[in-house]
Amino acid sequence: MPQAKPTVGFIGTGVMGAPMAGHLLRAGYPLMVYNRTFAKAEPLIRQGARFAPPAEIAAACDVVITMVGFPEDVEQLYLGPGGLIGQAKPGAFLIDMTTSSPELAVRIYETARRRGVRAMDAPVSGGDVGARNASLSIMVGADPADFEAVLPILRVMGTTIHRQGGPGAGQHAKMCNQIAIASGLLGVCEAIAYAEKAGLDPEKVLASIEKGAAGSWSLSNLGPRIIRRDFAPGFYIKHFIKDMRIALHSARRLGLLAPGLELVLGMFEELAGRGEGESGTHALYKWLTSHML
Amino acid sequence: MPQAKPTVGFIGTGVMGAPMAGHLLRAGYPLMVYNRTFAKAEPLIRQGARFAPPAEIAAACDVVITMVGFPEDVEQLYLGPGGLIGQAKPGAFLIDMTTSSPELAVRIYETARRRGVRAMDAPVSGGDVGARNASLSIMVGADPADFEAVLPILRVMGTTIHRQGGPGAGQHAKMCNQIAIASGLLGVCEAIAYAEKAGLDPEKVLASIEKGAAGSWSLSNLGPRIIRRDFAPGFYIKHFIKDMRIALHSARRLGLLAPGLELVLGMFEELAGRGEGESGTHALYKWLTSHML
Repeated sequence: MPQAKPTVGFIGTGVMGAPMAGHLLRAGYPLMVYNRTFAKAEPLIRQGARFAPPAEIAAACDVVITMVGFPEDVEQLYLGPGGLIGQAKPGAFLIDMTTSSPELAVRIYETARRRGVRAMDAPVSGGDVGARNASLSIMVGADPADFEAVLPILRVMGTTIHRQGGPGAGQHAKMCNQIAIASGLLGVCEAIAYAEKAGLDPEKVLASIEKGAAGSWSLSNLGPRIIRRDFAPGFYIKHFIKDMRIALHSARRLGLLAPGLELVLGMFEELAGRGEGESGTHALYKWLTSHML
Repeated sequence: MPQAKPTVGFIGTGVMGAPMAGHLLRAGYPLMVYNRTFAKAEPLIRQGARFAPPAEIAAACDVVITMVGFPEDVEQLYLGPGGLIGQAKPGAFLIDMTTSSPELAVRIYETARRRGVRAMDAPVSGGDVGARNASLSIMVGADPADFEAVLPILRVMGTTIHRQGGPGAGQHAKMCNQIAIASGLLGVCEAIAYAEKAGLDPEKVLASIEKGAAGSWSLSNLGPRIIRRDFAPGFYIKHFIKDMRIALHSARRLGLLAPGLELVLGMFEELAGRGEGESGTHALYKWLTSHML
């Protein structure tokens, strides 16, 4: 006889969280959901999820997943008055899938452990497409036994799932992802701006270079959008700035200079100040065209 | 009856040129070769190529291909005393496959045209592996008819062959390739340095991020070498510095700021000054570990 599935709570059913929670529903997990904007939870409720505030979810669920916006939201949700750690059942698992601060992840883990609650960080990459296709890469920072315990649930949402180390390690791994993206995207933008200024057909340049040593996901996926001046997100500049600030802060704590990350963050901050915060990250290209010599 | 194949001259039979010339030999082109270090031409001579100095090659061949080191070498070879343009047969094709300056390519084209000689630039990407497998990407700057005329010869050496525009456009396209690589490589190095400083297993981080938005040729191919501290070239830092200086000079002429390119060039110049010029480009990583906070 199959074991009954644990009740899962999902807090934050936005563009990423909603499809991820939907996969859990379809996999047969009893689901409770919460989102600040109720309307974004409605499709899940129609499919059988029960809406409840976070404290109630924490008190009722064996596993609580959070996918919210900023580290401040995570901190408030876990550690604030009536927060998840205070309300959770002993032995419950709290999985933060938000891209957030490694230090905060460690603080949450330790606070939770003192109450007999098992917290872990499990940020993802793969974007809204990966969330919809259940093909996310999930980077987990957790005690080994906790990781094993929740692995069946993570497998419902992702295909590439690695425990990167203890608490905070998932967030650190996600920072590596964002750091690699940052400078890589700058290279793509500079290459396309150069091609255009030199009078080349940038699409033909992409065809010549994308399969070789210059090849990257950004070049092949964001390059064509830059060329046709389609700066819709994708991934918002304002969110990438959040991630890059965490990464830079964390790099400095580790004693590491990250000149590429720092350069690109400064360019994005300038763009955000000019009202580009809700453009896609590939609007980094606009920095170049607005700073011609 | 098949048309007799034109006699081809190949000047510069180093790590790239030797296998490229070998493909032409095996494809049935009568071949003359020259290299400053005679020994590097010997295997081709044993396969039937005839060794001769550049002026003699120019006087005898229908098509002359050059694959040498630096723009100064190209300039000397084409425009210097006894140079290719002065010696070439009227109507001959001169194809410079060296990564060199777009301006110089235009100057060579114009000088050649006044003598009824057809010059073009056709730098490649794909490295020594691409040269050996005849899978190079070849970026051509040429008059359309000249491009069509030499295409059968280029197809012997490469698989991705695009005319990027008139004279110089091939070099410009190659600069786009190098510009995209430069910052992208910095992102890879920073990500790996971060992973290591954060106490993660960098191979596990690569496994989590290389298939997603952070994915790139550099991450998947150079990342593992960085992790095992194998800084053998690959592509020499000293050659990449040459390319990046051309790119930066050219970007400035086009009125384009390229802050990523400029940053990475400075890092490489510092490394070269510390004796790393003959390390592979991924030794950029060493800049980070030698500038810890």
